[in-house]
Amino acid sequence: MSELIIWTYDWVPKGPRGFVRDLRFRWACEEAGLAYAVRTVAFEGRETNHLSHQPFGQVPFLSDGKLQTFESGAGLLHLARKSEDLMPRESIGEAETIQWMMAALNSIEMVTVPWWFLEISGAKDNGLADWMGKRLAQIEKVLTERAWLAADRFTAADLLMADVLRIPKVRAFGDRPATEAYVTRVTDRPGFRKARADQVAHFAAADESRST
Amino acid sequence: MSELIIWTYDWVPKGPRGFVRDLRFRWACEEAGLAYAVRTVAFEGRETNHLSHQPFGQVPFLSDGKLQTFESGAGLLHLARKSEDLMPRESIGEAETIQWMMAALNSIEMVTVPWWFLEISGAKDNGLADWMGKRLAQIEKVLTERAWLAADRFTAADLLMADVLRIPKVRAFGDRPATEAYVTRVTDRPGFRKARADQVAHFAAADESRST
Repeated sequence: MSELIIWTYDWVPKGPRGFVRDLRFRWACEEAGLAYAVRTVAFEGRETNHLSHQPFGQVPFLSDGKLQTFESGAGLLHLARKSEDLMPRESIGEAETIQWMMAALNSIEMVTVPWWFLEISGAKDNGLADWMGKRLAQIEKVLTERAWLAADRFTAADLLMADVLRIPKVRAFGDRPATEAYVTRVTDRPGFRKARADQVAHFAAADESRST
Repeated sequence: MSELIIWTYDWVPKGPRGFVRDLRFRWACEEAGLAYAVRTVAFEGRETNHLSHQPFGQVPFLSDGKLQTFESGAGLLHLARKSEDLMPRESIGEAETIQWMMAALNSIEMVTVPWWFLEISGAKDNGLADWMGKRLAQIEKVLTERAWLAADRFTAADLLMADVLRIPKVRAFGDRPATEAYVTRVTDRPGFRKARADQVAHFAAADESRST
């Protein structure tokens, strides 16, 4: 019996709480009923203190017995292959799930994250706005036509896409009713709500130990 | 016996030739000795003419019998699972390969592509330059310490990372000798050279039929 360990920071400022990507692993484990432990690396010194586990100094990474993997997409795929609750076993449904996971990471997040980065950097004229608007319109069209991205039911693809689309600045960009309904519906799942509450509590508990 | 079909455009302007992402699939098939056919969708009208196959109006997508998948990362993973030449079968080597494929897509390309987009859009002060410099320095450190990203040998992770890093503007950004040697070495493989030549010839042949 392998032991799943989700690695995250010991503490983060209030801003990113509820958005740190260990949430993707917590949420997947909650959906699939997979037992897991949470362990930490220090937020202070993060740029160099855990490069042997994560070469960009980020979190999360995932341990499963002797296997360890970074990149939230890779860890999520690893978890998805453990449970049909996250990804169908048959080849067509599996391929649909993986393609939409990749779309969340490499077609949507590839523009939303840099756009968001420029926004919080105070860019007056965000050069990625038109491209993001186009991509979000394409996803809006998809979500107008279907309730779930893959296999006609909730999968890890919805988990990842909803996590990408729920970023407040992205959610507030334009008027996209199908996307808004989708994000609301997917993030109203008990698995998301527990994962989010657990992450927020994890970092809040660290506030207390830091202040003593 | 399934038939692999790589779908790309019927024609593209000269600029992107040698860089259209069907090359990732062609290269993988060449490395693994997988037979494949190439079929096309029209470049003219691409934003709407094949949305049922690719919801962003892009290429490539991949057919394998009844299975069809878009996103170059998803198609590449599909091909990698067919051949040990592209990805080890044992779980640790497979996980390493997948994590570095995801890193190429979601940690490196997530900054290099938007940075490149801003550059070609004529941005005077590219707000993503510092972030890209940091990420490329992190990859440079990794490539200083090892010849291959995963499993101590060439895998689909190197194929994808080298394809991301070989973009001329990215390659010319700063002085990163380990990365330069890596890109040179990986793109000197016969599989890459054949895939690139075939793609260039494919689009050049369309020039002739367009001019008649």
